[in-house]
Order: sequence, then structure tokens, then C-alpha cells
Amino acid sequence: MDEFLSLDKLHEECGVIGIHAPGIEGISHMLCFGLIALQHRGQESAGIAVLKGDKMQYYKEMGLVQEVFNDDILNRLPADIGIGHVRYSTTGESYVSNAQPLVVRYKGGSIALAHNGNLVNAVEIRNRLEDEGSIFQTSIDSEVIANLIAKNYNLGMKEAVIESVKEIKGSYALVVMIDHMLIGVRDPNGLRPLSIAKMDGGYVLASESCAHDVVGAEFVRDVEPGEIVIIDENGIESIKFSQGCRKAICSFEYVYFARPDSIIDGKDVYEARVESGRILARENPVDADMVIAVPDSGIAAAIGYAEESGIPYNVGMIKNKYMGRTFIQPDQKSRELAVRLKLNVMKNTVRGKRLILIDDSIVRGTTSKRIVNMLKAAGATEVHIRVSSPPVTHSCYFGIDTPNRQHLVGATHTVEEIKEMVGADSLAYLSNDGLVKSINFEKCGLCTACFDGDYPMEVPEEADKFMFE
Amino acid sequence: MDEFLSLDKLHEECGVIGIHAPGIEGISHMLCFGLIALQHRGQESAGIAVLKGDKMQYYKEMGLVQEVFNDDILNRLPADIGIGHVRYSTTGESYVSNAQPLVVRYKGGSIALAHNGNLVNAVEIRNRLEDEGSIFQTSIDSEVIANLIAKNYNLGMKEAVIESVKEIKGSYALVVMIDHMLIGVRDPNGLRPLSIAKMDGGYVLASESCAHDVVGAEFVRDVEPGEIVIIDENGIESIKFSQGCRKAICSFEYVYFARPDSIIDGKDVYEARVESGRILARENPVDADMVIAVPDSGIAAAIGYAEESGIPYNVGMIKNKYMGRTFIQPDQKSRELAVRLKLNVMKNTVRGKRLILIDDSIVRGTTSKRIVNMLKAAGATEVHIRVSSPPVTHSCYFGIDTPNRQHLVGATHTVEEIKEMVGADSLAYLSNDGLVKSINFEKCGLCTACFDGDYPMEVPEEADKFMFE
Amino acid sequence: MDEFLSLDKLHEECGVIGIHAPGIEGISHMLCFGLIALQHRGQESAGIAVLKGDKMQYYKEMGLVQEVFNDDILNRLPADIGIGHVRYSTTGESYVSNAQPLVVRYKGGSIALAHNGNLVNAVEIRNRLEDEGSIFQTSIDSEVIANLIAKNYNLGMKEAVIESVKEIKGSYALVVMIDHMLIGVRDPNGLRPLSIAKMDGGYVLASESCAHDVVGAEFVRDVEPGEIVIIDENGIESIKFSQGCRKAICSFEYVYFARPDSIIDGKDVYEARVESGRILARENPVDADMVIAVPDSGIAAAIGYAEESGIPYNVGMIKNKYMGRTFIQPDQKSRELAVRLKLNVMKNTVRGKRLILIDDSIVRGTTSKRIVNMLKAAGATEVHIRVSSPPVTHSCYFGIDTPNRQHLVGATHTVEEIKEMVGADSLAYLSNDGLVKSINFEKCGLCTACFDGDYPMEVPEEADKFMFE
Amino acid sequence: MDEFLSLDKLHEECGVIGIHAPGIEGISHMLCFGLIALQHRGQESAGIAVLKGDKMQYYKEMGLVQEVFNDDILNRLPADIGIGHVRYSTTGESYVSNAQPLVVRYKGGSIALAHNGNLVNAVEIRNRLEDEGSIFQTSIDSEVIANLIAKNYNLGMKEAVIESVKEIKGSYALVVMIDHMLIGVRDPNGLRPLSIAKMDGGYVLASESCAHDVVGAEFVRDVEPGEIVIIDENGIESIKFSQGCRKAICSFEYVYFARPDSIIDGKDVYEARVESGRILARENPVDADMVIAVPDSGIAAAIGYAEESGIPYNVGMIKNKYMGRTFIQPDQKSRELAVRLKLNVMKNTVRGKRLILIDDSIVRGTTSKRIVNMLKAAGATEVHIRVSSPPVTHSCYFGIDTPNRQHLVGATHTVEEIKEMVGADSLAYLSNDGLVKSINFEKCGLCTACFDGDYPMEVPEEADKFMFE
Repeated sequence: MDEFLSLDKLHEECGVIGIHAPGIEGISHMLCFGLIALQHRGQESAGIAVLKGDKMQYYKEMGLVQEVFNDDILNRLPADIGIGHVRYSTTGESYVSNAQPLVVRYKGGSIALAHNGNLVNAVEIRNRLEDEGSIFQTSIDSEVIANLIAKNYNLGMKEAVIESVKEIKGSYALVVMIDHMLIGVRDPNGLRPLSIAKMDGGYVLASESCAHDVVGAEFVRDVEPGEIVIIDENGIESIKFSQGCRKAICSFEYVYFARPDSIIDGKDVYEARVESGRILARENPVDADMVIAVPDSGIAAAIGYAEESGIPYNVGMIKNKYMGRTFIQPDQKSRELAVRLKLNVMKNTVRGKRLILIDDSIVRGTTSKRIVNMLKAAGATEVHIRVSSPPVTHSCYFGIDTPNRQHLVGATHTVEEIKEMVGADSLAYLSNDGLVKSINFEKCGLCTACFDGDYPMEVPEEADKFMFE
Repeated sequence: MDEFLSLDKLHEECGVIGIHAPGIEGISHMLCFGLIALQHRGQESAGIAVLKGDKMQYYKEMGLVQEVFNDDILNRLPADIGIGHVRYSTTGESYVSNAQPLVVRYKGGSIALAHNGNLVNAVEIRNRLEDEGSIFQTSIDSEVIANLIAKNYNLGMKEAVIESVKEIKGSYALVVMIDHMLIGVRDPNGLRPLSIAKMDGGYVLASESCAHDVVGAEFVRDVEPGEIVIIDENGIESIKFSQGCRKAICSFEYVYFARPDSIIDGKDVYEARVESGRILARENPVDADMVIAVPDSGIAAAIGYAEESGIPYNVGMIKNKYMGRTFIQPDQKSRELAVRLKLNVMKNTVRGKRLILIDDSIVRGTTSKRIVNMLKAAGATEVHIRVSSPPVTHSCYFGIDTPNRQHLVGATHTVEEIKEMVGADSLAYLSNDGLVKSINFEKCGLCTACFDGDYPMEVPEEADKFMFE
Repeated sequence: MDEFLSLDKLHEECGVIGIHAPGIEGISHMLCFGLIALQHRGQESAGIAVLKGDKMQYYKEMGLVQEVFNDDILNRLPADIGIGHVRYSTTGESYVSNAQPLVVRYKGGSIALAHNGNLVNAVEIRNRLEDEGSIFQTSIDSEVIANLIAKNYNLGMKEAVIESVKEIKGSYALVVMIDHMLIGVRDPNGLRPLSIAKMDGGYVLASESCAHDVVGAEFVRDVEPGEIVIIDENGIESIKFSQGCRKAICSFEYVYFARPDSIIDGKDVYEARVESGRILARENPVDADMVIAVPDSGIAAAIGYAEESGIPYNVGMIKNKYMGRTFIQPDQKSRELAVRLKLNVMKNTVRGKRLILIDDSIVRGTTSKRIVNMLKAAGATEVHIRVSSPPVTHSCYFGIDTPNRQHLVGATHTVEEIKEMVGADSLAYLSNDGLVKSINFEKCGLCTACFDGDYPMEVPEEADKFMFE
Repeated sequence: MDEFLSLDKLHEECGVIGIHAPGIEGISHMLCFGLIALQHRGQESAGIAVLKGDKMQYYKEMGLVQEVFNDDILNRLPADIGIGHVRYSTTGESYVSNAQPLVVRYKGGSIALAHNGNLVNAVEIRNRLEDEGSIFQTSIDSEVIANLIAKNYNLGMKEAVIESVKEIKGSYALVVMIDHMLIGVRDPNGLRPLSIAKMDGGYVLASESCAHDVVGAEFVRDVEPGEIVIIDENGIESIKFSQGCRKAICSFEYVYFARPDSIIDGKDVYEARVESGRILARENPVDADMVIAVPDSGIAAAIGYAEESGIPYNVGMIKNKYMGRTFIQPDQKSRELAVRLKLNVMKNTVRGKRLILIDDSIVRGTTSKRIVNMLKAAGATEVHIRVSSPPVTHSCYFGIDTPNRQHLVGATHTVEEIKEMVGADSLAYLSNDGLVKSINFEKCGLCTACFDGDYPMEVPEEADKFMFE
């Protein structure tokens, strides 16, 4: 599902889910439905691991959730507890051996892990483990974490998990199935989201609340930064393994990654986007006839911009929902065509109009140029781009696939240069302050590193970023 | 792609395309891209037939265009001329033998046909042909038409086509490839759309203008009701084989079938939908806090309703774009779940609000009920449904898959009863007049039979409707 | 399954089966098992058509029987009567549209046909039908026959079949399912085999008796040349529609095509092959240490040769049974490798030995050369090739895929030249008389045209042979 | 490929191959061709791992070699060195995670392993490693061995391999790719075969010599029991890591597993089988008209029996080579049918005859019974079974899938009882002495444990045999 349009976006790397509901029918199906709700977080592979009595089984494969699973497969995976994962790969090559959940056997039995995020000290820990003779079969952080837990197994599994997460640094929303417990862990900065919901007969952990909705579970609360939640037959136990870190939830979740119908750390994602549009209108007004959006991700901010500016919102482009994975060759001409296949301009609507075009972000700038061309070719007299987030200037080390800095147009060009490059009549971005205000957190509660380089922890050199892959 | 939500919609049965551009590279690819643009008109099977020199080849298969075709297949189909087809099946069982284009050999060579529409006298003609010893291998109208043309081959192919279309009755947008000509035919009432565009080195015929846009062709004009256009190396020749019929373009194309970015018979589909929302607001005002739409098809009318009423439009529901073909069992509980997987309510947005919910049409009413339930469960205090077309009360005989009348809730229940059934606080439909005004044709230029039973020609008994299938 | 080794063989084009057993369970499965037994007659496509009550259904696909069918598919094809077909294609390109059985609808209902053989006047009849306006969707003879039957439907179906087969010329073993009857037809010369067996509750028609064995049916008799057998609830009715033709069963059925465990026209195929080896030994003795065979088809004749000559038979080469369809490129080096993958020499057995190598036939001679090379490389001191059939010198027009005469090494080279070409120390073929004696028919009972050009009927020019394909 | 007939046979668990030939083109293809030659040793999964420069890649999948690989895949696996593996699973459930080669990363880089055999102390070692905190992701011995090597990496890789194989007990023919070396190891008893061949530019290691033949390599010698061979750019280095053990090559390799065209430990497999037939004839003569074999595995012994007894050998049964994986349900009736689909009796040949039926072994006895039934039904007057190996009475712990002893008919019934059970007129087995003589080794050079319980080392309790699976 790596579409050409989305080449010009940043990408989330994973979504996770876990269900603990012994005695309830259909847990495998529910995991699967939850993963469909989280599909936007990763389209490369999908998998679930389940425990019924003492028998742990798993099934994972390359592809979308609905390509990987069917009723036959799900019916062969009875469950009291289960976890699931969807993955977006950060590299061109991708293997089923890197699909999650990871299931391994250790001294005490079996353990399954699903991880969203990126450890910045995984290489360091791996080197140390290899010094002791450990071997590794994948390039995923989960295998490092599983080794740590196994090394600590004699502490008992709860303690083993606690000791292990104390060693890892970086971003992680982690769901673990071990010893008849479902465990959720969120890193000390809370970089990646994870929340708890209550369903009939049990509990659900998921990256986003939209997954709770799908399985009919009622939102309880977010897992807190630096918190481990242990769910077993006695209910939920909470352990704080880290305190004093500043909270730094990823601001790009609100800008683009999360589904608009999710509520993350108490903030409605859709509302944050509409608000970013309103602030953008105040910060960067322009005289025009119509506000339009790059569908679908720019629509909420466009509605906010229109509301604030009084300039009417209209549908200026249509997205072809049947345009999925494509067989088009990756040459220049084919990419032009791909954009046309994916997006079509409403000619009668935009002809002769001065347009404000709202996009949620600009990463490389290549698609923006094609869209401006299409709008002008259809007769738009002016195209003013307004971006509902600041320029992306720094790489992410916490689980987001960002191109090298040299490919970040915001890092290498001034706003004026980008405007020229994409052929717009004007171009303006939301300010950093505007972004923070739209999400309505204190600045210190957000990670805005990709916009300002203010990383919440020490990060490795760029070259090491994905050395496992 | 038979999604649960769409069970509650009417369905188009086909889309067609044809390209005549000898000497131009990549015609098979263009046919394929055009079919992707027309995919919303049929998701069951896809196919193209091409002619290069004197060699006619075809490829067709069950599935979406992008599942059926890839670069390898297209590269093996060099073309001077070609036609393509996407099909939606009207019955549960469906076979590749019914996929189109149909390619047959007759005395003079090969002929390929692709048909959108439904012949009301196909059974009659077929009986007559069988009396003479003809055999039939499919259950599609195209095979009947091909037989007629072959029977008339000694008149010359142009005359053969003319004589043949004079015998058939019903709706048809037909593209035919024969004798190095690309021929387009539209039935005397113009029930199904077909238009002509000019591209570098040739011409394109397509059901909707969005397919022209994708291949970079410039719209020329619609094929007229009762017109045959013959495209060969000398350009376009036009023959009017029928005159005096009233024009009766299908009004449901504007309500739901056509893509909003298409322009059909001179009328912008999106604009017609926005206008229908405006008229709906005038005809059926109601006091409320917010206008929301059933995505995606209700959005344009919702924007029009909001504009006219002054009540703000907002995004009240989100559609999961990854929810495709589903493995969910067709029981009651699973259907509930399917709606939840497909649509999620923006809880913070609708909570405590009085909503106006815009839907483009109601066929069975089952999905409406589930949506109202979801909105109320999310805290909406009132849900007022406004439908941007009149109640569907009659079956279509011209290529649209309508359920039996007993399943058309508009035929069997009063508006008040439907309101009770779906649990809405109020329910109102666009008037027939309002519909006609929104499209801005003279009434006599539209077929509104599914809303009022005013068929533009004599139609068979219900039982005979799809006796071939 | 077009293996490299078999490139140097002639190929049968089809196998057919029919079962009439209303009320018996599992007829679709039996058809399928029978087709597995007939798989050697065609590996390109497989299909069955069944009738239950008045409902006729079919399923056919490219591939081996076991690739095409599974329990699910067969269970959805309940049957009172059914027919089946396996096909070997005579051309490089092959399409599912040419798979059989062919199922068509005519005035009186549905008809299904499966054909083994080749009509020499199909083009002529087709032209005549096209003159009358008929269209054709495939390039198979069955479609011509179906048209003829449909044209005659008003005679009643029995008469229609009789009249139709009187018009066609060439070779045909035909099974037809029409009007609740299972009909078998064999051409007036009896070129292709067809026999009848009795099972619990019904009858079976099949190309070879090995298919009867598999479904547990008891052989009754061969269908006679020029005979139609009509099987319905009243039993078997026999109609002789042609008399006076000389019987001419294909002699290559005994040489190579048929399975050795089949009995055709009263003659045990395996016994005929052993006898051909005995006669070959008398006609062409040579002093040597060991008789070996090209597996598997040369084994029976090698056993006969050893028995007659007193020289011991041994296993000189082993065939890899897992070597199926191959991904090897068709270049010279890869073909060498393919032969090595398919056949391996028993080095210890042949080292230092003077060998008599028995092959059933030589068509192009390319494989023979490779085998001689391998044997010599393994240390054989002499390799004397003895072929258990005469040189192939003429094309077949009756359903066997023969290369153009210029590729028939027996037509273009003397025996001495072929010996040189393949590198053998001596080479000798069975005489025409020897072949006839081994099968033990009167000469006039066999078609030996591919060996002597004595065709049992007038045949078209070479160029027209497969003009449909 | 788990055919019904083969249910009544023992099964090898794996085949391995390794090639070291830097600079030679097409090594991946050669590995693949070698695996096709070894396909009879395992049909469940296939895989290869390759090293080019410092880049190690692998590809493995469930299925036959030709289903798993194609040109595209092989071309993406350039190689200087490579290893390959085919696997037969010992349990009903089987997973791709257990496919080999196993590729892991350790401190010094990557290591790939492929193993044929079974470790009897794998559980013990695994427990010890788990005590130290190791985790396991598969249930194969190779993962245990890889862990041992990684633990010893600081000794240097040669020493690490030596130290590791000193810890493991059981049977193993192991190929390892590490540190630009190709390493072959054979267990101290030499239970499983492994041999070396020379090709242009390099060396080949393979389970059987038939794999050498296919890639055009010249046999050099067998790897000796207790020997490690290290192949690098300097040629072959040999290290004897164990001495004094008695040699105990698996006798069943000669009876059934190995391909007849292989030479193992200096002994021609085909010749051993013919000789076993000769000895069988001397030990258990019987008056009869004809010797026939259960194809294909009984043919060599039948030829020997016929030669020695003077009773003529003939083809009494034919095997359908197209009968592969089957969709037939595993009920009693279907199994009868499966035998009929797979084997057909030559009725004319056996009718009225007194038969000697040669089978290579009897494990459960179920198929023997069906075959006797078929022969008698075809008119055989007597069926005397002669088995060219002794009764199988004990389980194998060294890599052969033997049923539990209660299912070994030779362990639970007398010969007389088995004769009654299968309905034969007489039944006799080859003696243990006869078996040893046929292979022509000293008794102490063979493992005959499955016939006499004389295991070459201490073996675990039955229950522990496959506890990993």
C-alpha cells in the first residue's frame, strides 16, 4: 500500500493491540478487527499471537490484515489472551522474519512481544548480549527485549519485565504476553501512544482509541509514560518504573499519523487538526475565493482554516479510493500518472478561482508540485499553499520513517525557495507555537524534534539510526 | 468488494472505455488506467481487448483492475485500438465467462464488445436466434448483440452495427472494436452515459469523463442518444440511428453512481450533488447544531445543505479506507461489526449535539438504522436524517441492480414508518422536483423511474428481469 | 508439465470421461479420479461438467487435475451425469477459453461436450456456419460440433447428434451430455479409443480402461468405430451411423500414448510393448552385455528385447520423479542440465559395458544424443540404440501433436545419418510389419500413417492442419 | 507430497547440500538443482542461504523445491558460497519457522546451518542454554548448534565449530557457512551420509552423490565419521574431532531412503538392493510363475530375486506418476481409492499366475493388504510376499520418522500373523545377516537398530524423542 502520494509523507512504523479476556469467544477475530482499525499505522505485515490454556500459537505474514487473515486461520487460533501487530517497514527490503509479534521460548515457557517505536540503544545492548554468545535471527528491537527478559527470568516474570525495560532507551509502546499475563509498557517520555479500554470480560490495550471502538470496548485511560500495566485474572496492576522524565508524546501523531477519530492522551485528533487550521488562518491569512484540501489528510485543517477565515471550504480534488498498490514503474512519467490516477481535480469548481490549498505537511515537496500543476492546468488563477504543521527539518529516532536530512525539503530550502520549487503563489507553514497550541499541551508535553531538533533524550548519530535493518 | 455498507446502496453494473490511437505507445496501459478511474462502476471483473495490425487479443479475469492486470500482462497486449470493461454482478454467483469484453470470431474476422446497460428484449431476441440454431455460452447481452452483428455481416460492418442496434431495446452504452474501427453507441434514450475525448494521436470513449482525465485526454462531447460514432483513421463519423425518443439520462448517475469529478451530459456531478443539498435544505429545514454526512457519498450534499441552512458542516464520521473485501460471516452480529469497522463516529464532535445527517439515498434502510444507533450511542441528542434524493420505489430495468420491490423500504413503508424504523428524530427526502432542479435538466431529459415509475419505454414483468443470470 | 525430455516425444491431445449414474453419490469426485488416471493424455487444462436435475454446471481451469480441483469445488458440483476432459495444447499459447468440456445453451437447454481427436473438415464447416452468421468464441472442434447439434435440435436430440456426426470428418472420441443422456461417439475409423464400463448404478465411458479401474467400474466393451452409444435411465442404446470404413485405431496409442495398464480394442498395451521388444530383438540383434531402457516408456520393450535375446535387462538410468514443470531457461546449456535433472545414469552398472538402449520412438533425436553422451561419459563402451517403433516420417492429422516434417528426424535423415547424429554405435528401428505384428491386428485395423503416410482418409494440406489455433 | 502409499514407509528427515565456488556463476541455481536431486529426502520445505562478499541472504518456504524457487528468486541470490536444505517433517503440524537453512547473526557476523539427523541430547543442551537466559525461536536442532557455536565464538570459528560438535550427540550430517568457509561435519558414527565432490572452481558437499551428478561435480570421497571438512579459498582442510566410535551408517539408506543411483560410503545403492533380492531368493525360495515388485522401490530387489531364482521378472503393477498431493479425505474408503489412483494392476499379466511380490519393507502393513487384495481381484492365484529387509521392530532416534512401536507391525506381530493380516499365501523377510551381506559392510559398520534394537549409542526414552516438535 506504499502509494506514490504517500511518498511525500512521513510514516508511522507500527500499531499494537492486546486483549486479555479469558472465557470470551472470538478474541482472535477481535484482535484482527482491531488491527484493521490500526492498519493506517503499518501496511507491510500483520500478525497475532494467542494463548489458550498453556498453548501459545501465532500467525503472521506480509500484507494487509485482510490479506493475511481469514476465518479459517482465525478459527484455528483459540485464545484467552492475545496480542497483535501491524508493521510499516522503514527500508525497501522487508522480510517476513521481521514481522511481529515475536514469539520465543525461554526457560519458563513462551513469550510474545509486539513493539511500536524504536530503541536508540538496541545496538549497544545487542553487542553486549552477543559478547555473551547470544544469537539473533531478526533485525527488530523486540528480539533484543525478549533476550533481556529471558536473561532476567529467575527474578520472576514481572520483575524480569521491569528490569528489562529499565535497560532500554528510546520510544516504545510495548505489549507482551507472558505467564498468562498481558503486559503493556510505555516509554518514560510517552513518545508513542498506548491506551487501556474495558470490554465485556476483559481489557484491551491499543495504540489508538479507534481500535477500542471497533471491538466495542470502553476507553478507560492512557497508559502513562514510564508505566507498566499488568493485566491478569485479578485485574490491572500498575507499576511506575521511571519518573521525572518530561512527557513528550509525538506531535506528528496529531498532525498526520493517528486516525482523526482517535483520542490520544486526552486530546481529540480531529479537533487538534481543525484547530491547527484555525491558527494557520490567523497566522497566515491570504485573500482568496476558496479553501480546498489535499485529501484526505488535509481536510480537517482546511475546515478549520475556512471557518476562521470566512473563506468557503469546497471539495477541490477527489481521491480514487480504488487506487491501491500499483504496478506502475517508478519512472518520472509514471509518477505523474500515478498522481493523476490517485487524485483528480474538480475542474468546474476550481476554474477561475484563487485557491488556498491546505496540506498537513510537506516532506520532500514532490507531490505538492504536481498538485499545483494540476490545479493551474484546470484553470485555478492562484494557488496559496498553507501547511498545517511547521517545516520538517530533523530526522526522527523514535519510530518514524524520515528520509535523510538532505531529502527533507524543509531542512535544505527556505520557505521562499520551496514556494518557487512547487510553483505556488504563496506558501506558509504553521508556526511551532501554533502547532503546540493546536494540540493544547504544554510544550514540554510534546516531542517536536522533527520540527525543531529538540530531542527529549540523547540520540545516536544519523548513520547508526537503523543499523539493524 | 461487496462491502456491507454498500448493501444499502444501488449499484451500477458496468463501465466501458475505448481508445483508437494507432501508433501511440502504451494503449493497453491507458485502457487499464481508465478502468481504474471507472472502478466504482463495477468491481467484480475487469478486462481489455486490443487490436494490433490484424491480431486481436484479450485478457479478462475476476477481481479489481489492479488485481487482474500487471505490467507483464499489459506488455503482452500491444494495441492500435482497444476497449475495456469493468463489471458489477447482479447476482450472488458470478463467473469469469460473463466477464467482458466479449471477443468472438465471425465471418469477417474478430469482433470485441463491451456493454454498460441492460437490454429489455434480450430474451426475445435470444429465443429467435436459438430458433435458428444459435448457441450461447454466456448470460450477457453482449453475446446477443454480437450474434446480431454477425448475422448482418454481409451488409458491411457499419451497416451491420446499425441494423443490429435497431433491433435491441433497453439501455446501452456500447463500445465495439471491429474491422479496425472503434465504434461507440448510445441507446435512443441516452440512459447510460458515454462521452468522447481527444488525446494525442487518437480518441477515447468512456462512460465518465474522469476516465478521460486519467489518460490525459481532452473532453470533446457526449455521444448523443441514438447516435453511433465510428472512429477510424479518418476521424469520427456520426450516424443517428434513432430520433424522436425523449432523452432520459439516468438520474441516479448524479445521485450516487458517477464519480463527483465527472461531467455527464454537460452537468458537473459534484455541483449537482451540492445543489441537491441546497434544495434539500430549503425543502426540509430543521433546527440543529451541525450538518454531518454519511461518508463519502453524502459529503457534497451535506456541504450544500450547510451552506444553504447556515448550520455548520462538520466531519461526524470517519470511514476506514483499509476496509475492503471482508471475511466476516453474513450474520446479524457480524454486520453490526462490519459497520463499525467501516465507519467510526467522531465522539467528541457529536456528543451533546443535534445533528442533521445527510445521506444520498436509502434503499433498504438497514445501514441507516445502525448509523443512527452509533451516533446516539456517542451522545448525539438528536439525529435528523435528510436524504438528497427521493424515496426509491421502483425497480430499474436499465442496468442498475435494484432489489425486489419488497426490499425497497421506500416502496413498502411511509416516510414516517421509515423514520421510526431507523430511529431518527426526523426524516425527510428531496422531492422529485428538487432532484430534477438540482441536475438542472428538463424533467423530460431525465429517467426518474426508480423514484416515480415513469419508465421511458415499456418494461418487462419483474420476474423476467434477469432471467439470463 | 511440458518437460524437456518429452519434447522428443509425440503428444496425445486429450482424454475424455463420462459417467451416467443418477442417485449415486460422488460422481464429480469419480470424474476427477478418472481424469487423474487419464492425466498422461493431457496436462494443460482439466474440467468437468455435471448435470443434477435440470441444472448444468461446469468448472475448468488451466493446470493438472489436482491443481484445478479440490474437495470444495467438487462438493459444489452435485451430479447425476457428468463428463470430464484433460487437454494437451498443440501450440505454445494456450487459453482457458479452449479448455473443455464446452458448455453451451441451445434452444432445448444446455449441452456439454468433450472431444479427443481432430476434425479435418472443421474449417470447412465453420466457414459454412459463419456464412449463416454464426459466431465462434474458441478455437476448438467442440464448438463446431455444438453448433451442428443446435442447428439440428428440431430433429430431437438423438437425431440431432446422429446428423451432426455424419457431417464431421476426422478423428473423434466424443462424450456429450444432453437432455439427461450421456452420449459417446467414436469416429468411423475408430482412430481414437473409447470404451464402456459398468459401475454400481450406472455406466462409465472413458478414453482408456485405466480410468475405469480407478472408479471401480467393470470393463464392458469398446465403443465400435462409427458407433453412437446413448446412455440414459433405460440403459445403453447403440446406433451405427457409419459402416464400411476400414478400422484404423492409432498405432501410437500402443507405442507410447496409452498407459501400459490399459487395454485398448482388446489388446493389452503393456503386452504389445513387450512383444514389440521381442520382435525388435529378432529383427535387429546385436552382441552386447546388457539391455537398458529410456525410462519409463522404453521399459516394457526392453524387457521383451532382453527376454528374446537372452541378454540381461538392467536398470541403466533413473528418472527423478520430482522433476516437474521447470523454471529452467530454454537455452542449450539449460536443456543439457534439464536432461541431467530428469535422468541420471547408474554409473557402476553401465561402466565398461556394451549396452543395448531401448527407446519407444525417436521424434527429433535431440534427447537421444544427450542420453548417449551421458552413458558414454559414465563409461559405457558401446551404445546400440534399438527403437521399438518405425521412424516417424509423416505428420498426424488426427489429434496428435507432430512437429512439421522438417523437424521429424526420421523424415529428413537416413537411419545411418541419425546414428551418426546421436553418436550411437548402431541404431535400428522396428519394421512396420513388426509393429503391426506386435499389436496383433490386421494391418487394415491400424492407422500407421505417421510411419508410412497411409492415411485412412483424405487429409488437408499441412499448412491447414491447425488453422484454428 | 505425503502420499497415502508412503504412509506405510519410513521417512528420511532431510537432505543437505553446500557449494564453495567463489567466482563461479549460477551457484544459487546449482544449489537448487542439487536440492531437486535430493527432493526424495524431504518434501515439506526447501531453502538456500548464500554468501556473496560479506552479504548473507536466504530464502526458504514450505513446498517442493520447484514450488519454492524460480529464476527471479534465484537471480536475486548471488553467491560465492551457499548451502541448501530439504525437509520432511515428523509431525502433522509444520511451520516455515522450522524450515532450514537457519541463518543467525552472532558476534562475528552471520552463520548459516543445514542439518540432516537428530540430536539425542538437544533437550539437555537447550535446558542448559535456557538456564543461562537463551531464547529459542524454532524447534530444530540447528538452533541449538548455532547457539553453541556463538557461545564459543571467541575461540575463532574453526575451534568454535569443533568445540560445539563435541558437545552434541546423535546423528548429524551438517553443512555450515561461516566466516567465508563452507564446513561439513559428520557425526562420530557416520549415521547420516555426506560426501565431497569437485567441480570447476570449487567443491560440493551433499547428502547423496546423485546431487553431485546433477551439478556436474566429480565425486571425491565421503566425509568420514567424526570428521570436519573446512573448505575455503585454500582448499579442503580435514579435522578428526572424534575417533574410536564404531562406524554405523544407517542401513535403511540402502533399503529405501537413498536414490538408487547414489553411491554411499563406497557402496552402490542400486547394486545393494539387487543383491538383497538375490540373497532373499536364496533364503526364502518359493515356487511361482512370476516375480513382480511394488513400484518403484521394490524393483531392484525384484530384479535380483528373479535373476537368482530363475523365475521371470515382470511388470505387475503400474504407478500413476501424476498422483501427487491429494485432496482425498483420510477416511477408510478414500484410502482404498488413493491406492487405486496411485497403483494399478496389470490384469492380463497377473491373471491366473502365482506371484512373488517384492517389497522393500513393511512398516504398518496396511498398504500390503490392499495390494494383495488388488492382485487377487485381478486373478492372481497366489501372492507370496518377499520383503528385502528384516521386520522393522524398533524406533529410530537418529533422524528417521518411525511410528511408535505399537504401530510397527513387525514389533507387535509374528511373521505368520502378518501373513494372515495382509492375506498373502506366504510371507518372508530378508534376514539381518542377509541385509548386512547385501550392503557388504562388516556388521559393525552399519546401524541396524530399527531391525534389531542394537543402537550405536545410548538413546533417550521414547517419549522424549521429538519433544521439541
